[in-house]
Formats: sequence, structure tokens, C-alpha cells
Amino acid sequence: MSSIKPQVPKGFRDFLPAQKIFRQKVIEVIRSIFETYGFNPLETPSLEYAETLEGKYGEEGDRLIYKFEDRGGRAVALRYDLTIPLCRVVSMYPEIAKPFKSYQIAPVWRADKPQRGRFREFYQCDIDIIGTTSVLADAELMVVIHAVLTQLGIRDFIIHINNRKLLNAIASIAGIPNAELAAFLRTLDKLDKIGKDGVSAELLEKGFSAEAIKKVFSILDETGSAKSHREALEIMSSMVRDNTSGAEGVAELSVIRDALEAQGIPDTAYRFDLALARGLDYYTGPVFETRVIAPKIGSITGGGRYDNLIGLFTNTPVPATGSSFGLERLMTVLEELQGADTPNTNTQVLVALFDMSLRNETLRIAKMLRDAALKTEIYFEADKLKKQLSYAAQKGIPLVVIVGPDEARNETVALRNMRSSTQEVLAQHNLVQHIKEQLAKA
Amino acid sequence: MSSIKPQVPKGFRDFLPAQKIFRQKVIEVIRSIFETYGFNPLETPSLEYAETLEGKYGEEGDRLIYKFEDRGGRAVALRYDLTIPLCRVVSMYPEIAKPFKSYQIAPVWRADKPQRGRFREFYQCDIDIIGTTSVLADAELMVVIHAVLTQLGIRDFIIHINNRKLLNAIASIAGIPNAELAAFLRTLDKLDKIGKDGVSAELLEKGFSAEAIKKVFSILDETGSAKSHREALEIMSSMVRDNTSGAEGVAELSVIRDALEAQGIPDTAYRFDLALARGLDYYTGPVFETRVIAPKIGSITGGGRYDNLIGLFTNTPVPATGSSFGLERLMTVLEELQGADTPNTNTQVLVALFDMSLRNETLRIAKMLRDAALKTEIYFEADKLKKQLSYAAQKGIPLVVIVGPDEARNETVALRNMRSSTQEVLAQHNLVQHIKEQLAKA
Repeated sequence: MSSIKPQVPKGFRDFLPAQKIFRQKVIEVIRSIFETYGFNPLETPSLEYAETLEGKYGEEGDRLIYKFEDRGGRAVALRYDLTIPLCRVVSMYPEIAKPFKSYQIAPVWRADKPQRGRFREFYQCDIDIIGTTSVLADAELMVVIHAVLTQLGIRDFIIHINNRKLLNAIASIAGIPNAELAAFLRTLDKLDKIGKDGVSAELLEKGFSAEAIKKVFSILDETGSAKSHREALEIMSSMVRDNTSGAEGVAELSVIRDALEAQGIPDTAYRFDLALARGLDYYTGPVFETRVIAPKIGSITGGGRYDNLIGLFTNTPVPATGSSFGLERLMTVLEELQGADTPNTNTQVLVALFDMSLRNETLRIAKMLRDAALKTEIYFEADKLKKQLSYAAQKGIPLVVIVGPDEARNETVALRNMRSSTQEVLAQHNLVQHIKEQLAKA
Repeated sequence: MSSIKPQVPKGFRDFLPAQKIFRQKVIEVIRSIFETYGFNPLETPSLEYAETLEGKYGEEGDRLIYKFEDRGGRAVALRYDLTIPLCRVVSMYPEIAKPFKSYQIAPVWRADKPQRGRFREFYQCDIDIIGTTSVLADAELMVVIHAVLTQLGIRDFIIHINNRKLLNAIASIAGIPNAELAAFLRTLDKLDKIGKDGVSAELLEKGFSAEAIKKVFSILDETGSAKSHREALEIMSSMVRDNTSGAEGVAELSVIRDALEAQGIPDTAYRFDLALARGLDYYTGPVFETRVIAPKIGSITGGGRYDNLIGLFTNTPVPATGSSFGLERLMTVLEELQGADTPNTNTQVLVALFDMSLRNETLRIAKMLRDAALKTEIYFEADKLKKQLSYAAQKGIPLVVIVGPDEARNETVALRNMRSSTQEVLAQHNLVQHIKEQLAKA
């Protein structure tokens, strides 16, 4: 066999230990908070039948699905997000007790053009609450978002909150016909990126009247000027007074405001933002996304209520709300905040091999450390001690234990601290205790 | 859109919370032990270029690779195991310090015929040590296997150990030409499944001489009669005395024996087994697999030294040894040992919603519990209390907190223990403490 060039497909990545250790720590924080809020883990297969996924993500989305034929000739596809597989699960196992609160932390695949920060395989972290129409559930998702980001040390973010019912009302007040609503919202959703002028131009191009556009922006401007969340809600309320859907939307946002306050979310952490539309067509109620202000990186969570989506599988609608964290953007923010100071290894102690004839004594010492749950590596070859120490330094292992002939005879060991370059001789039965003390100091 | 039948592709599975919680616990134990032994996490992409995988797994293996064209027309394939991607990584990043000890816990995909216990997507847990020829590394893998299985509560298992060098020597002594070695070992590997008669018949059919077959079995019988590991090694040693490769193989097994003893592995936990061949062609030194005796389920770990495999990518050989745990078989064993008594939820407390007007008070109580890291779920609708309690019972949530009008007024709560069906009224500031005590008792 001739030699094969080692490479990964474009848009795919390896995570070497330093990166993977950091990712695992972040995922561990996310998972732990999800569980604190009563969410339970769920896993669906990487492959679904293509028909399960197709037609759910819009035209552009459908084109990005990794789709192929299995050996039996059935069209299968790699999971494109975590929401549709969840909907499939909920309808496939009607025996699941509702409300069903689940979380999923898993990769998804999109055959997108790879670019900086955009990959073809990337992780999403989803939480969903299935089977209740209560907006306390929507509010809880926001509380979880706040808890996760805060716990990860991210401070400068705002959760933007809107309600599709309110957007429907505004469109109706501006004279936009229902059939055009989706097209209207898809353009409005770009306000953050292309600004008011860009959105106006695109709406005109799509055939919306200048008058309708003016009306929409006057509503947005008016609520944008509010001094408090209560005032914003009051302005919204007066504007949609005569529209049932609009009044319902404002009432829901008001319950959400109270719920956020009761759960200790500061006013500065969120904003009622009538311009937030969220791209996907399937949202039916509250929608929300989180934007990080510094470093400016766009939205790192997105979600909302999707009361009709599960009905695609069951015929009976099942109410649901959910939110997704984009792990890759989250990692980018954390790397910028924390710098590149991540360790290469979790290993705490290297047990050096002084001489092959002392190998069994050396292994016994390593066993003692591992029995005490110390993360311990053994050096497998009787190389020069200098080489073994430089291996520990290169890997970033903080402590090295050396068992030479004297130490073996006297039931002692030498313990070297790689940071301070100090070394001390200790009785073997004191070693675990000493190591724990040195690690606690570091 | 018409309703789509919710189903998963054949050979693929959903893990609902009860199963996923159990799997996560098992994976957590495995991961923790891997790290205690100084292994660090690695992750490679799910998709590789097809040429990276093809030609490594034998003819049958190649046929089972999930392979398709990406949008750019390149042949890509879903990862078939974790070893080849690791070899690709090691050769792609020569800057990685050696020895490199990594672990991977991840799904792999094989387009195999689904049957009981065999899936098209399944998890492997691999540990590998790259860059050392020391058999202390091979021994360490066996120590990790022993630690993982013991920690998981599996007692009835035997690690079968052999050495390819020894097998080569035996084949040579029996007069089997080098070119026929792979075919010979593939049949010998079935001894455990089809017995001596089956292996003899298949070897005859493949054209091996009756004399050679007889010779091989006489060697196997002789070592099989040994009363201790030392005696087995002595018999082996005397049989291959005149064969360099054979003598080297026995010497390596002898170092492994000492290393296992030094690390506290009981003699009953392993066996030197000359009939163990391991199917794959790429092994070059020690090979080992673990068989569970009760419940009898075949091998749950397999591995060995593969000093030439990385050379397929680098042209320079890099020594390596590794072992893989099959998570699915491990789960089957654990389910049989522990019964189906796994909880449906990790949630510890349900906070009931007595009345919508009390929702903010209720949310404040939930926040207090979550701030104390208690896994807490809120009931989102003001349903009849009976319905809320039966939801907790159905989910297996052990405690329910109720905030009625009296409790809200008096800054108390009612705490209901679902197991004992008892209920007590507590001051809100004592609630966290009381819950922790009740959970500790459970």
C-alpha cells in the first residue's frame, strides 16, 4: 500500500487533547445546569430517514442536508439539527410523560460552504419543553440561558425577546397580508445585520408598500424608546389594543417579564425587541435569541415556541418550546475571554522509570497513586531522567515521582515539582498526602 | 404537508432519558478511569475521506463502510472505528509529544446486517499509547481494562492474552508458510466459537496439511494444561526455544505477567491463551481480549500492538498499542447484572404550581433550590394538585414542594416525600437543608 496523505475533509476538525479538554469542561458546565433545571438527557441517531428531515428547514436548509442512499436503497440523511429528531421522538413514543423536558448535546451536519467559524460538523446544545402551552416554560429557557452564560463567565450579553403573535399583529396593522408574512419576517430578521435602510430596500424590492414599511418602523421606533421593560410592554399593548393575537402576545411577554424577575434575572440581561423575527417559519409564540456584545460575534442561542411542528408527525399538535446553544460560537467567545491558556493534559503526576530493573517497584507506586484517584502517567522506558523530566515539562504535568535504587531500598520516593523545580524525598506512605497538598497549592 | 410516519432507520436507536442516564453514568466511570491512568481525550470528525479508511479493515470490513460523495464530488465515509482516525491524527500532527496517550469515546458506523445486539451506529471506547515499544504500555492497557470492569461491578471476566510473535513462531514450527499466516490466524481465531473440530475442518478445507494442524493443536494442548501463569510461560518458552520471534514473544509476556502482578491484578483475571489470534491483520505483538463469563456474551474488549499501522500514513513506522471497549455489549452485561431498575429522571424535586396567582412566589422557591444545585423541575400549569403529584410519581421524582396561599403568607412550604407519602410544613429558609437530608436518606 502506498502512503496516504493524512488530512480531514474540508469543514471538519480534529480536537486534540488541549482543545478537547476545554470543550469537555464547557459541556460539563452546560450539562450540569441543564440538569439543575430538571432537563434530562436524550440521544437520537446520527442518521434519520431523509423524509424525516426534508421540508422542515426551508429551501436553502434542504440543500445543505447530507443525504445519501443506504445499502438497502433507502434515502438517509445526517441529522441537520436536534429539533426535528426530537419532534420525531415525541411522536414515536406517545407514552413519554408530558411535560417532557429534555436536553441534547450532539453534533449536527450541514454541507455548508466552510468559512471562519463555520463548520460542516458542529455541536448544538438544545433544551426543550414539550407538552405545555404555559409561557412559564418559555421563561424558564431564558433563565437557563442566563445561568449557563453567567456560570461560564460571560457577562456582556442580552437576551432579545419577541413574540410571533405580536409580529403577526404588527404585520396585520401595517396591512401586510398573511400570505406574505413569512417573506416579510425573513427580511425583518436581518435588521441587526443590514440595518434599517437595508431592510427597507429589501422589503420594497419584495413588493411591500412604502406605507406598510413606514408603519412597521414607526411601531419599532416607538417601543425602542421605552425606558423600562414595563414601559415597553405598555407601549406595545396600546399599539395592538384592537388585535386579539397582539394583545395575547403582549400578555405573554408580561408573564415572562414577571417570571424573569422572580427568578433573579436582572433587567439589563434582556430586552423586548419587536424587530427579532428568527428565520425559521415554524415559530408560533415567544421567540428569543442571545447576542454577545463583547466580543461581538452575533447570536449564541436561538429558540422559541413551535406549537405546530410535532403535528407534522402526529397530526395532533403538541405544544413545545425550545432553545439551542451554538457550542462553536460559545467556544470562540470563551477562548477570547480566557486566552489560550488551556492545559495539554489532565494528568497530575508522572511516575518516572529510573531503571528497567526497578519497573515493578515503580508500577506499584503508580498503582498506589491511581488507587487514590490521582491522574497518573507512567514513563514506559528507562530513558535518561533528563529526557523524562522534559517530557513532563512539554506535556505540562506538574509533578514527577522518581523511584531510584536508594528510594526503593528505603521505601521512599523523590517528588519533583516541575513549576518550582524543587525536589524532596518522602516516605512512600506519605506520598499521596503530599501530592494532594502540592496540587491544592498550584 | 402530509403526516410523516415517525421511525428510525433500521439498526439505529433512540436513547430515551432512562437509557441515556444509565449510559452517561457508565461512560462517566470509563472516562474517569481512563484519566486516572493518564489518558487524555481526543475527538476526530465523524466523516473522513474514504481513502483514509479503505483497505484497512479487510475485504468484508471495506464493504461495511458507509461511503458517499460530498457536494464537491469527493468520496467521504463515516468513521468505521476509532483506530484508523487516530493513526491519521498522529501522522498529521507530528508535533504531538510522544508517548501520546489518548482516549476516545464516540460512535462508529457500519452498514452491517442489524440483529440482536448488533447495530449500525454503536459506541467504542478506545485507549491507545503511541510512540513506545515498551510492553509495559501493553500491560497498562490490561490494567485499565481490569479497573474499568471492576469499577462497573463486573467480576466474572478473563483477559485472554497472546502475542503475535509467538503465533508466528508456532506457525513456523508447524511448517505453515508465512504467506498463509493471515488465513491460518483468521480460522484459529474462531476456536472459541466453533471449537477444535470446526477449526480443524476449516483449516483442512483451506488446504493446510493434517500434520501442521495436529502440530498446532498439540502445542495449544500442552500450554493449556499449565497450573500457573509462570508454568504456562515456561512451557511456551521451551517449545519456541529455537525461534527468535517466539522467544521474544514469551519474554514480552513474562514482563507483562510481572507488571500485572505489580499492579495488583489477580492471577484469575487473565490467561495466556495461545489460541487467541484476533481477526485483524495489523497486529504485531501482544494481543488481548476480554471475555465475560456470566452473562456469556463474547468479548467486550479487544486490542493489541500495531507497530506498522501508522506507517501507512507516515512511511516511517510509529509503534503503538491500543484497546477498545465495546460499549453496547458492556451495557448488555450491566443491564443483566443490575436489572432494569434505572430511573427515568435525574430530577430531585418538583415544585408544584398551586395557583397561577402564586406563580412568582413558586418561581422564587425554585430558584432557591437551583441555586443550591438541587435538580429541580417546576410544574408549569396550575393543574389539580393530584395531577401534579401523579406526574412526579410517574417520572420518579422523589420530592414535591408545594406553595399554597397559607405557605406563601407564612413564608413556609409543604414538602412531600413521594416514597413515604408523608408531608411536612417547613420554614422556607430551612427547605434546602431538609431536602438534602431527605435525599441523603433515600
